[in-house]
This record gives sequence, C-alpha cells and structure tokens, in this order.
Amino acid sequence: RIMRPDDANIAGNVHGGTILKMIEEAGAIISTRHCNSQAGEPCVAALARVERTDFLSPMCIGEVANVSAEITYTSRHSVEVQVNVMSENILTGAKKLTNKATLWYVPLSLKNVNKVLEVPPIQYARKEQEDEGKKRYEEQKLDRLETKQRNGDVMLPVINPEPHTVGYSQSSLIHLVGPSDCTLLGFVHGGVTMKLMDEVAGIVAARHCKTNIVTASVDAINFHEKIKKGCVITVSGRMTFTSNKSMEIEVFVDADPFVDEPRERYRAVSAFFTYVSLSKEGKPLPVPQLLTETEDEKRRFEEGKGRYLQTKAKRQAQMQQAAQQ
Amino acid sequence: RIMRPDDANIAGNVHGGTILKMIEEAGAIISTRHCNSQAGEPCVAALARVERTDFLSPMCIGEVANVSAEITYTSRHSVEVQVNVMSENILTGAKKLTNKATLWYVPLSLKNVNKVLEVPPIQYARKEQEDEGKKRYEEQKLDRLETKQRNGDVMLPVINPEPHTVGYSQSSLIHLVGPSDCTLLGFVHGGVTMKLMDEVAGIVAARHCKTNIVTASVDAINFHEKIKKGCVITVSGRMTFTSNKSMEIEVFVDADPFVDEPRERYRAVSAFFTYVSLSKEGKPLPVPQLLTETEDEKRRFEEGKGRYLQTKAKRQAQMQQAAQQ
Amino acid sequence: RIMRPDDANIAGNVHGGTILKMIEEAGAIISTRHCNSQAGEPCVAALARVERTDFLSPMCIGEVANVSAEITYTSRHSVEVQVNVMSENILTGAKKLTNKATLWYVPLSLKNVNKVLEVPPIQYARKEQEDEGKKRYEEQKLDRLETKQRNGDVMLPVINPEPHTVGYSQSSLIHLVGPSDCTLLGFVHGGVTMKLMDEVAGIVAARHCKTNIVTASVDAINFHEKIKKGCVITVSGRMTFTSNKSMEIEVFVDADPFVDEPRERYRAVSAFFTYVSLSKEGKPLPVPQLLTETEDEKRRFEEGKGRYLQTKAKRQAQMQQAAQQ
Repeated sequence: RIMRPDDANIAGNVHGGTILKMIEEAGAIISTRHCNSQAGEPCVAALARVERTDFLSPMCIGEVANVSAEITYTSRHSVEVQVNVMSENILTGAKKLTNKATLWYVPLSLKNVNKVLEVPPIQYARKEQEDEGKKRYEEQKLDRLETKQRNGDVMLPVINPEPHTVGYSQSSLIHLVGPSDCTLLGFVHGGVTMKLMDEVAGIVAARHCKTNIVTASVDAINFHEKIKKGCVITVSGRMTFTSNKSMEIEVFVDADPFVDEPRERYRAVSAFFTYVSLSKEGKPLPVPQLLTETEDEKRRFEEGKGRYLQTKAKRQAQMQQAAQQ
Repeated sequence: RIMRPDDANIAGNVHGGTILKMIEEAGAIISTRHCNSQAGEPCVAALARVERTDFLSPMCIGEVANVSAEITYTSRHSVEVQVNVMSENILTGAKKLTNKATLWYVPLSLKNVNKVLEVPPIQYARKEQEDEGKKRYEEQKLDRLETKQRNGDVMLPVINPEPHTVGYSQSSLIHLVGPSDCTLLGFVHGGVTMKLMDEVAGIVAARHCKTNIVTASVDAINFHEKIKKGCVITVSGRMTFTSNKSMEIEVFVDADPFVDEPRERYRAVSAFFTYVSLSKEGKPLPVPQLLTETEDEKRRFEEGKGRYLQTKAKRQAQMQQAAQQ
Repeated sequence: RIMRPDDANIAGNVHGGTILKMIEEAGAIISTRHCNSQAGEPCVAALARVERTDFLSPMCIGEVANVSAEITYTSRHSVEVQVNVMSENILTGAKKLTNKATLWYVPLSLKNVNKVLEVPPIQYARKEQEDEGKKRYEEQKLDRLETKQRNGDVMLPVINPEPHTVGYSQSSLIHLVGPSDCTLLGFVHGGVTMKLMDEVAGIVAARHCKTNIVTASVDAINFHEKIKKGCVITVSGRMTFTSNKSMEIEVFVDADPFVDEPRERYRAVSAFFTYVSLSKEGKPLPVPQLLTETEDEKRRFEEGKGRYLQTKAKRQAQMQQAAQQ
C-alpha cells in the first residue's frame, strides 16, 4: 500500500511501527490460512514471537510497501513465517529491501481460545531446511524462557529528572483496546501492540536526543499473554543504553482488564528497540550519553552494552564471511 | 488485507465504499508505476473515470481481500486498468469474486499539475485486444461529455418531508480534506471520494427502507475536477428511482476551496449508486416505492427506470449468450 | 456520519470525545468560511473556547450523527458558533438531541499565524440577539482570565496507591502530533485535543469505578496555546470529586515541542469532565467515593463539590422556570 503522511514522522520517514504492523498482518494471514488448510477445528493464528529484525533502509511517504510472506518451518504447535518488505518508489521504479522478519505463530481454536491446535506439517525441498528450522525453533524456545524471568520489572515514575538521565526521557502511553485492534478471537493483533511499542520507544529516543530519530532494529519480542478487547494497555519505555550513535530503549506492555474481569494488571509483552538519530541529509548523528544514577540503571546499561557488542560482533562475522565467499 | 469491524455495517457486510477505495489504490499504484516506466518527467496517475461495476457477493469482517490489477489498454494520454477483488475466508479457504472494475487514469506531471503527460504504450498479445480497448476508450469518452452537461443540478433541503418521498431520505455530509486523503500532488485520491459517496448513498438507502442495505452496483463515475487539500467537500445524495427490490441514488460531490483560493464552489464528481435491502438470511427484500412529487423528481424517476431496464436487458442478453455457448 | 465500532466503548455507547471532535470540525468549517467571506487576507479559524456542554442522551453504533452549526455572534476578533448534534436511528427514524455546544473561534492569518484578523460582522434579526451575544462574549472573556491563573498546577505520579484514592485512577497518555491531527496552519485541531482529553478522562473514571462509564458533561474548555505538528502532547487526568452518581475529572494537556524548537514544555489546555456509570440497562449506578489524602486533594474535592452544587442549582432553576411556563 502507499505510505501516507500519517504513517511517517515530520522528516518523512515511515515509522518502524507501521512497518512492523504490516509485517504482522501478512504473517497472521498466511499462518491462519495454513493452519486451516486441513479439515478440523477452525482456528486463528496468534503471534507468539518476532525474531530480532533490522531496518535496513528508511521508507518514505508516497512509496509503495510490497510485503511478501512465506512459511519456512512448522513444529507440532507453531508456524515460522519469513516476511520481507520492499519499498518501491513508483516514480523511479527503484526498489529496496527495507526489512526481513521472522515471526512465530500458534493456532488457537476459534471455539476455545485456550486450546492450542496442531499445525499441518509443510514439505521441505531439502532435508537441511527442516533441520535448520528445527534448530531455530529450539533456540527461540530457550530464549522465551529467559525473558519470562525478566518480566517482574516495574517502571517507577521520577520527579524533576535531570536532562539525559533515564527518568528524563522515560515515557508511557495508555490505550483503550477497540474492536479494530483485535482479531476474530477478540484479542489484540500483535502488530497493533508493536506499533504502540515503537511509538513510545520513538518518543523516549526523541526526548533524549531532541533530533529526528528512526528505528534501527528491534530485538526479539515475546508475546507472553494475550490482551483482550476492552482492556486498557499501558506501554512504557525507558532508555537502557547509548553507544556513540545509537540508543537502546526497553519497552513494557501491561494490560489492565479493569472492566469485566476479576484479574490483576499483568505484563503482556516486553522488548528492546534500538534507534539512531539522523541529520537532514540522512547521516547518523552522535547521541548524548545516557546518565545512569541507580544501581539498577548501571546494571541495565552494562547489559545493554553486552547486547550491543554481541550484535556488532555478529555483524562483523557475517561481513567477513560474506567477504570470504 | 483483513477486513475489520470499522470496514463493515452493523450486519457485518463490508461497505462497498471500502472496496472501491482498495480498488482505486491498486489502480493508482499500477498506473503510476507504468507511466513512470520510461525516462521522462515524473508523474502521478490521477483517476479520471470508473466504469460501471457490480458487487457480485458481499464480503464480511475477518475475511481477507485479495486485490489484483492489470493494465488492459493505453491511449495517448490515458491508461485503462482492470482490477479484480476476491474475498477469501482464511478459515475455510473459500474464495469468491467480489468485484471486477475498470478504471481510467491520466498521468499528471509532478512539477506542473495541469500538464497531462504521454503514456508509454503497452504491448498487446493479440491485435483484437488493442481494437477492443480502443472501442472502450471511445465509448467512455462520449459518455464523459454527456455527464458533464447534467452537472448543473443542485440539491435543495426539504422541510418536514413525508416518508418515502425524495426529500425524506435525502442526505449530505461535509468533510474537510486532510493530508492522508491526498496523493503526492496534494489532490484527493479518487478512492477516498468514492468511499464518502458510498457512505452518503448508504444512509439515503437505509433512511428510505429502514432495513439492512448493501451496495449492489455503481454506475460509471467521472471525475470532472480535482479536489485540493484543505477544501471542504459536500457529498449529497438523493433517491432517484426504486424497482421492486432495488434503489437508485444519485450522489454529487461539491468542493469548496474556501481558504486559499478565490474560486467558487464547484461540482467535482457525480454518480448513481444502486442498493438492495437484505434480510438476516441474505435474501433481497422488497423496497417501498419512491413517492415522486415535483416534475423534476418524476423525470429523474423515468430516467432511472430507463437505466434500470437497460441494465436488466444487457444482463439477460449476457445470460442468453452464456447459455448458448 | 454513521457511528462505527471504533467510535464506541464495549457497551456500544459512542465516546463523548468522538462527538466533541465532530462538533469542533463543524464549528471550524463554518467559522473559517465566514471569516473568508470578504475579500482580504485568507485565514483559518482556530478554536479558542468551548462553553460547558451536557451530553443529553447516549449515541450508539449504527446511528447517524446529524451535526448542524450556526454563527450566533461576532465580536471584532472572534466568532461564536452554536452546534447541535442529533442522533438518528435510521432504521426506526427516531431522532434525539444528543448535544448542544457553543464554541468561540478566532481567525488567524494563513501567512502569519500570530496575526489575528478582523471578523466580518453578521446581521442580527433583532437587536436583543446582539446584546445577548455581547453579554456572553464578556462573560467568557472573564472566565478565560480565571482559568489562566489555575494553570500552574502539575500532576505528580503516585507509587503503590490504594483503591479509590486520587493516585489510584490517575492516568496519562502521550501522543505524537501527526499531519492528520492538524489544520492547514499546521496546528492541532481543537477537536483532536478534546477527543484525547475525553479518552484519558474516561480511563480515569473506569479505573475508579470499574464499570461501564459515559461522558455526562464537559465544563468550559479554554485553549490557551496552540500546539504545533511534531509536538508530543501529554494528556493527564485525575479525579477531583465524586457525588453519589457522578465523577469529576480534571484533565491537563501539556505540549513538548522537543524536536525543532528551543521551547520548554507548556500547558496548552485544561478542563473538567463529568462521567456517570451506567448499568447494562442504561440506569445510573452508584459510584465509590473518592478518598482524598493530601490537603490539595481535599481542597480540589471541595471546589469540585462547589461546581457540582452550582450546576445542580442552575438545572433546578431552569426546570422550575420551564414548569411555570
């Protein structure tokens, strides 16, 4: 579809959240279609996890987003979908790869939303493809357990914070879940949640550096719990780490089923977003260093540094590999 | 994309206007891409005309709309695009043809919006295809001239109208044209206009018959004049004709460039929409007869009857032809 | 226009904020049109104030909102507009008055947004109409000054609040101002701001009483400062007073022009919203009493009580007057 002014920031760059939302919609369609391809209980595929994804080149207003999706692996109860987004300038015909994402879906019965159904297996062209898929499946399963443990963390408000501290840029928004946010099962689309998360993370980043910012990457996101229509969700973001030219923001999504259910507020999703700041010519700008104050902030900064160095090392290894081939 | 609650009426049927908007976006993308495929002045394809289109089967919330577009003819200054819409129930896998539409686009220069550029010719598989396209091109050109003459007509408000008269169901809405309604050139997308027209026509139809209604067909729509960002548009609809089971509604779009230009309100588009009323089981219901009062209303009723009989005769001829084959 | 699922809460009642937004759009169109009706500098009418307005009857999904606007007074630099909203059930034809609002607009030059232009005077049918309008004009001018003084107040976050305290239901949202939120001048439409204010106030009310709530009335709202495209706005709400069956919520709007301007965060708007809680049958429910803790909270509760009693007395006086006629 054509990118509109509403999809972009004032510098004309399409929000990462808009792209994540399109990716997730494509993934939900293809995996729901696949899971219903054999006779049996009708079901809706619900997003369980998005693997780490990099935004390779910015998309602009007026460009057309081409989204393609393919099922690359199926386990007994989950589907792996690979989605590619190309931006196309229809005036010049130029196309660029904007984004490559891997998503995991789980089929939930239409009759009983708490029942996970079986996934019809796909055929692989080569045996290796199945083995690699299985490896990816096991890895993500492990990673899901880890983040679950981190989830007790709560963001506390700060009064009169100094510039460039964590409290200074910390932000949160609340959103009342409406019918258009939801799937047929009455639960929020993962893509809607990711769009709100990107919105908050973008505001945290802009508050910190006060310049034009764009989403550079999103770490793996695990969807621990479903969010129902009528809930109020609180999306909160705080900066955890800055390198010379990037900012890492941790985002939490908490759901408050305050109207019809006797349930406490719960953590539904959490993730790390990385932003860079761009000059008018599209060059990365230096970013003010994050000032950490408490022990927790210092610990989170070190953990963020760890993730940053790990990603950097991985990228260098890939480049070397590519150079050698 | 997946149809959401906001795309549909309270009976769950997706608004004809939403479908028209998707059709037009697909047409605009493919024709803009084609017109920029050769080196030369960059341009944006603007919608000039939509041929008469029938809504063959209703689409529902939760279904996926698959839109495909193909360029079928090019004249020197215009592009004919054929767009098909399939509705797909991703749970059952059932697909149905919802809509087949033919649209005409004209390439306008990005630098000078009043300059119409030349269209790169397409290759035809067979010579007949070109001849048939040329015939369609000539026919629509003639028809455009005719509707231009009809355009002086104005809709006056009626005080305390009786049920089932023209004045009783007559409706209008105003809309302030915002940035997301517009193309790169700053003019309203044809699809946005058609969506508003369908909204008004639907209100007229529902007011007349007080039951659930759906768009059955839209007569050829000519876009006489562009509408600029910042304009207020008034979309007015009145019933012109009823058969036993259908209602014809005439819709006008007037633009008011009241802020920055020293220009009078002008008629930008006009068209006829046909609606049917459906029972809960999806069967067509009888429609109360329209009571005509003035000479003009009686004349319009007769003209509507003419269009109705002509369409009916055409459809019967097609069915006979199909039966003979 | 027809009310859609996204316009309403889960009980099917249209959000007060959606109605306020429609009212403001109608007011902005009629006053911009009027202010440009004489040759001279083109301008856009900006909302300066909305008088207190009551929501007389709820509107539901599927109903049509009929909005009509009329200019009732002009001073040298401002326009008073009266807007009525009728809800129409198009299936039964039943119409009800939903809302009556009075808005004040000021014409700002398109070329220089800080220049207030002169308003072409309107003609009054009777001299009294002008005198009454002048009286209303003087009264609102006085009231504007008063609220300006109240505006230093800041909402502080509360950690681990008890149920039914002020801190427990206190809520805030942030919103990045996009192009569709803005007028031709690049400033946020008053209606967009009011819709966000109603959203926050509704969440505060629902958090307090945990039942279905609807907007009952909105006190006069003064728009002190314009908000520019690209700003982040923080909309915060806290409960100030509860009677047996109503809740008063104070809402602040602060703008953060953090991207391109060297300006501090500033208070743009503030207002009081009153909500009631409704049972499934639409009857008002009792509301838990607000627990006040600090001196400020107690003072605000007393002030809220004053406003509540004053409104009640006024309404009784009006009813007596009506009964005597």
